[in-house]
Amino acid sequence: MAAHNRGVVYLGPGKVEVQELPFPRFVNPQGNPIDHGVILKVLLTNICGSDQHMVRGRTTAPPGLVLGHEITGEVIDRGRDVAFLSVGDWVSVPFNVACGRCRMCREGQTGVCLNVNPEGAGGAYGYVDMGGWVGGQADYVMVPYADFNCLELPDKDRARAKLLDLAMLSDILPTGFHGALTAGAGVGATVYVAGAGPVGLAAAASARLLGAAVVLVGDLNDARLRHVREVGFVPVDLKKGESLPALVEEVLGVPEVDAAVDAVGFEAKGLGHDHAEERPATVLNGLMAITRPAGKIGIPGLYVTEDPGAADGAARHGRLSLGFGEGWSKSHSFFTGQTPVLRYNRALMQTILHDRLPIAQVVGATVIPLEDAPRAYRDFDAGAARKYVIDPHGTLAQ
Amino acid sequence: MAAHNRGVVYLGPGKVEVQELPFPRFVNPQGNPIDHGVILKVLLTNICGSDQHMVRGRTTAPPGLVLGHEITGEVIDRGRDVAFLSVGDWVSVPFNVACGRCRMCREGQTGVCLNVNPEGAGGAYGYVDMGGWVGGQADYVMVPYADFNCLELPDKDRARAKLLDLAMLSDILPTGFHGALTAGAGVGATVYVAGAGPVGLAAAASARLLGAAVVLVGDLNDARLRHVREVGFVPVDLKKGESLPALVEEVLGVPEVDAAVDAVGFEAKGLGHDHAEERPATVLNGLMAITRPAGKIGIPGLYVTEDPGAADGAARHGRLSLGFGEGWSKSHSFFTGQTPVLRYNRALMQTILHDRLPIAQVVGATVIPLEDAPRAYRDFDAGAARKYVIDPHGTLAQ
Amino acid sequence: MAAHNRGVVYLGPGKVEVQELPFPRFVNPQGNPIDHGVILKVLLTNICGSDQHMVRGRTTAPPGLVLGHEITGEVIDRGRDVAFLSVGDWVSVPFNVACGRCRMCREGQTGVCLNVNPEGAGGAYGYVDMGGWVGGQADYVMVPYADFNCLELPDKDRARAKLLDLAMLSDILPTGFHGALTAGAGVGATVYVAGAGPVGLAAAASARLLGAAVVLVGDLNDARLRHVREVGFVPVDLKKGESLPALVEEVLGVPEVDAAVDAVGFEAKGLGHDHAEERPATVLNGLMAITRPAGKIGIPGLYVTEDPGAADGAARHGRLSLGFGEGWSKSHSFFTGQTPVLRYNRALMQTILHDRLPIAQVVGATVIPLEDAPRAYRDFDAGAARKYVIDPHGTLAQ
Amino acid sequence: MAAHNRGVVYLGPGKVEVQELPFPRFVNPQGNPIDHGVILKVLLTNICGSDQHMVRGRTTAPPGLVLGHEITGEVIDRGRDVAFLSVGDWVSVPFNVACGRCRMCREGQTGVCLNVNPEGAGGAYGYVDMGGWVGGQADYVMVPYADFNCLELPDKDRARAKLLDLAMLSDILPTGFHGALTAGAGVGATVYVAGAGPVGLAAAASARLLGAAVVLVGDLNDARLRHVREVGFVPVDLKKGESLPALVEEVLGVPEVDAAVDAVGFEAKGLGHDHAEERPATVLNGLMAITRPAGKIGIPGLYVTEDPGAADGAARHGRLSLGFGEGWSKSHSFFTGQTPVLRYNRALMQTILHDRLPIAQVVGATVIPLEDAPRAYRDFDAGAARKYVIDPHGTLAQ
Repeated sequence: MAAHNRGVVYLGPGKVEVQELPFPRFVNPQGNPIDHGVILKVLLTNICGSDQHMVRGRTTAPPGLVLGHEITGEVIDRGRDVAFLSVGDWVSVPFNVACGRCRMCREGQTGVCLNVNPEGAGGAYGYVDMGGWVGGQADYVMVPYADFNCLELPDKDRARAKLLDLAMLSDILPTGFHGALTAGAGVGATVYVAGAGPVGLAAAASARLLGAAVVLVGDLNDARLRHVREVGFVPVDLKKGESLPALVEEVLGVPEVDAAVDAVGFEAKGLGHDHAEERPATVLNGLMAITRPAGKIGIPGLYVTEDPGAADGAARHGRLSLGFGEGWSKSHSFFTGQTPVLRYNRALMQTILHDRLPIAQVVGATVIPLEDAPRAYRDFDAGAARKYVIDPHGTLAQ
Repeated sequence: MAAHNRGVVYLGPGKVEVQELPFPRFVNPQGNPIDHGVILKVLLTNICGSDQHMVRGRTTAPPGLVLGHEITGEVIDRGRDVAFLSVGDWVSVPFNVACGRCRMCREGQTGVCLNVNPEGAGGAYGYVDMGGWVGGQADYVMVPYADFNCLELPDKDRARAKLLDLAMLSDILPTGFHGALTAGAGVGATVYVAGAGPVGLAAAASARLLGAAVVLVGDLNDARLRHVREVGFVPVDLKKGESLPALVEEVLGVPEVDAAVDAVGFEAKGLGHDHAEERPATVLNGLMAITRPAGKIGIPGLYVTEDPGAADGAARHGRLSLGFGEGWSKSHSFFTGQTPVLRYNRALMQTILHDRLPIAQVVGATVIPLEDAPRAYRDFDAGAARKYVIDPHGTLAQ
Repeated sequence: MAAHNRGVVYLGPGKVEVQELPFPRFVNPQGNPIDHGVILKVLLTNICGSDQHMVRGRTTAPPGLVLGHEITGEVIDRGRDVAFLSVGDWVSVPFNVACGRCRMCREGQTGVCLNVNPEGAGGAYGYVDMGGWVGGQADYVMVPYADFNCLELPDKDRARAKLLDLAMLSDILPTGFHGALTAGAGVGATVYVAGAGPVGLAAAASARLLGAAVVLVGDLNDARLRHVREVGFVPVDLKKGESLPALVEEVLGVPEVDAAVDAVGFEAKGLGHDHAEERPATVLNGLMAITRPAGKIGIPGLYVTEDPGAADGAARHGRLSLGFGEGWSKSHSFFTGQTPVLRYNRALMQTILHDRLPIAQVVGATVIPLEDAPRAYRDFDAGAARKYVIDPHGTLAQ
Repeated sequence: MAAHNRGVVYLGPGKVEVQELPFPRFVNPQGNPIDHGVILKVLLTNICGSDQHMVRGRTTAPPGLVLGHEITGEVIDRGRDVAFLSVGDWVSVPFNVACGRCRMCREGQTGVCLNVNPEGAGGAYGYVDMGGWVGGQADYVMVPYADFNCLELPDKDRARAKLLDLAMLSDILPTGFHGALTAGAGVGATVYVAGAGPVGLAAAASARLLGAAVVLVGDLNDARLRHVREVGFVPVDLKKGESLPALVEEVLGVPEVDAAVDAVGFEAKGLGHDHAEERPATVLNGLMAITRPAGKIGIPGLYVTEDPGAADGAARHGRLSLGFGEGWSKSHSFFTGQTPVLRYNRALMQTILHDRLPIAQVVGATVIPLEDAPRAYRDFDAGAARKYVIDPHGTLAQ
């Protein structure tokens, strides 16, 4: 077994670096030995928009954190309690760390597992306040409760041919799907997705997969808006108007949609003249304005309890100024939280394997070696219409 | 047919009066003749907490409005397009006016019918901004789309014996039920209901009917808290603490519940030291604090887009300062809006007729003649632990 | 208004004829005047597989019955209780006649309306035991409770361009969709549809729309099997094996699917050597054999209580010899009955209008003039891989 | 650790005996060591109606089988991979053996786990064809995948006070609940339960807990019918009529119910004159006759693929003569299979601990020592209106 390991480490606002790391061991963040884990050789591991929240200094992430929660890997070692995975298996790993044994996991709510994070419900790899599990933007990583958490890719030849698509199963595809599904973006629906980043694009692709009639995606970034059009959705340029209903009406003839997804979260900016200003409630207020009566709003975009980098005092403590009465008057429902990936990833894998969902193309998947991660963080932060996928061992080149 | 009619009229903040009214006719608020209505002799008609929002001057309700949207009546005349109701039938009328023919009604979303209110989705009797339908705190009232809207009470003898309970089917029982149901207050759940007014009590009774393990009800009013205990729920005195989780923990041993219902709405006051101050977001923020991961929050309590009587500028325009990140971190869902009464009233009627739900007792139903309505408005506003039920023709005395 | 009318009349087993008919009037089958109807000039009206059950003499349909329950039309007259349709509107008519006012209709169960059929729950146009409503394979037809029943096509130009697709909204598309949906043929599912007739093809198209990974369609008819492949599904030739699990395994590598749809019903024939014999339980037994544990079986295919033409005595009284224990051991669920078209047709219309569902092509829609209906009945009965669409006024040629 | 163990062993049709048994070890039925199990000292373990199917010789159960799948126990030893249970914990054990790691378990379908039974989906303790796991009508038993399978009873003092009720969580209460829930026996429903044995009574109690308006329970046994009345349900004496609809109409005034539960299964007998004859399809056909349009039928009663003791040849191979057309004409849905106990047991435990569900009294729980098990099998088979609960260590007497 290799002793060598490298990974992407957060050093402080705006600063990440590839560093040598200890080789993963079967211990949990509290230092106790565990037998339910596997060690993976990382096949692919993606940079996520939520990593950017940390790297931009908008969280309390501590320097030294190994980043990375979107992991696809090959089992190279397993603990003695692992019964249904074998060395050599290829697996997709949900970003949620989950025990598979608590009330929440039994109910399919793996996003808020009660046993993997001493500070609250829900764990993740390489993420602040999510239990201290070491991140996977690395050569190797340890996955606990592996029988439960790992989704086995069923056939290595078929998997290799779709590996770049399958890499999206660990987070953004299920996350976009959860947003679309909870929003009711199903058969015949008109759908608006706020945000043309990878999660927004995944939500749009999911809405299409679920049978939506038409999908609009709003953003401020020209490159991303062009990409939206290229992959078959209707771009909405938020710089070009002061009113979201009016922008929607230009496309659909009516100022409303059946279903709306917030794929932006708390770092939102304004519309039109305000598009350079942070407006943390602007997406939610806009979605209430455009969603039809009895409509639903899916909110995969992250909202936080503390935002040390916020522009104003209320926002620094996670307080949003919401026009809740508008939603109430239209009988809206709102769905929040970390996506329970395990609820969706198997079905989504099937759609990829059967050529129904070219998700890598939709999100602009772009493969890079591990050492290019710092540059990719910068480019992604600057608004590149890409989803960066790290291939630490050159698997895709083989 | 009688030509005489009287009803409760809103004259301005704090002022209602029983006045002579025209006898109802088969015309809609736009003055057009309709054939789908029935005229009801009102058997019972209740005063609602949401009437109080208007009477307190917290809405833009115009003077001259005939109040009343909780109506139980006897059919005394019917339009020629009414096929399934007969003169003499006793019916419960949902507070929502609904056409039964639009997309929303077809989908069971009668709270946001598209055809009964030129200003927006959803109609109601005797209510500001809800389509201009004449209210039913009166001797007689007209109900449009009667075949669709009216729930026939199946057997007059059985109905008479339970009439005071059945009177709650027009609004507060289904509204409380909708809150409990959307909150997931089902089998085995621990439940917290904010507000011990009639809707809160109906939510509590609904939670119990749905199989909840234990139901807590929080309020500031001592009389209401005593009533909570008398009808079998656990009172939580919000004057006695600064922290809702701590108050819940005192009862349950843990600072959280499975399901939470907001039966207060925008006129909320603070906890503990702040209990005399308006805090329009305090209920929602409190419910996010106590609801378990993956829990749901049902919000039958009314939130508005404009509140001319609010304490601060943001609230005057319906902006709430919500700590949305806390809900997001726990994967909460939120359910708002006017209850689609027709979805629930038939089933709830069955539970009343079969002695499963003594709702009149739970909400403290108190029968008064029509002429006492102004006094009842005052007493209810002062916090009486009662639900006032107007009996304009002395039906219950017969 | 035109006084002339013609329609397709059932004369006895194997015999239909186009005859002169009275012009429709606003009366119900009991002869009472009604005000809630519209008269439609029929734009398109399709021949359905369930019409064939009658024409083959497998029901108690009386000679003289005017056939046709798949109707798309233009409003040319309306009763005075019709408020939301205008002369000139184009509408799709669900095959279910429904009142929109009973318990079932309020709950969205329009397939079992309680007010339109004195003999039982559920009505239909031109169908035995379904209330006596005159069929629509005619120049003109009357539609009762029109505000509720008619789905307005929103834009005549867009509608004309898709009219042949939209014609499938009245029955087979929602029926296939209902089968697929209740079977759980959603995202990532492997699906088997029994029967490559129009409903089977519509179920397959619906499964694809709902996100299914792969859809197999089984039949005995070579022309239909070729058509299955041409429109993008996987044909399963039931003549080529004695075991359905084995046939499925040849395609998928495993002898099971996630979801199964019975689009055949009681006139089923056997597999392999038995393929010329009637085996009324063979489809249901086969679907239990191939459906995975906890899977669901959607059954839009018709089963009857009396089958005068059945091969054996039990079947003549609707008794099937079901291997129910196999389904039970796998925790199967079963979903039966007439599809409530109104629950789905609006959403499906949206998918057609937005180019998501080329249903006319999938089902092999073939336009004929009214006078060719008798020949089309014969060809369809002989197994033509087509869905015959009658265009009585030459609308599509305009 | 004690080396001594005793258990109830099946010796052949009609014959069970308490025998000395090996003390349980951490090995699976294939003889391989496992680390995920716990050894329980059995606190209570119940005799189930489905045990009777075996003991009556109606299955292929082999002599030597240790019976018992309803287990409540105290952890006395645990494997090294058990992380969340401790020695001394009291737990309720679902009758389903489930791995917690396969697709079915992840989806909450623990009744058809894919990893615990080489012969098919789903495992159980002490049951034919369910994986070979040793039964728990014994002093001690081993429970695999213990962290996942065991429901911890939260407080030993409260648990002790309700232990006889909590003993029903391992099977019949969730099984009855599953039947009631899938049948739609919710708020306001009229409900018919076929069979007044323990599962039927648990279904009736569950329907009441879920808010049903009225619950009828049908049986042929006079003692059981008396018990039905004593615990608050409406008995229907099936000996007294030839038509189930007529019997229902006598109670409800209409010949139909909203929801129906089959708590009998394949060993059903006829009505009225046929009440001494086996009629394996009679319950299902009867339930289709009485269930309202769009109603649902929950089928916790067991149906088998092979019944060596059946009266006729078709039934011997599990073929039932079902009048499926009647169900189809009413749009019925049917729900079958082993109950996934883990989906319900925690919530039901809460209702017991909070005094909402006196299930021991409802089912006639009767405590016996282990050595009386053979007699209890005979009495139960003879129709005693009791649920026998074995207390091998005299726990309840302490």
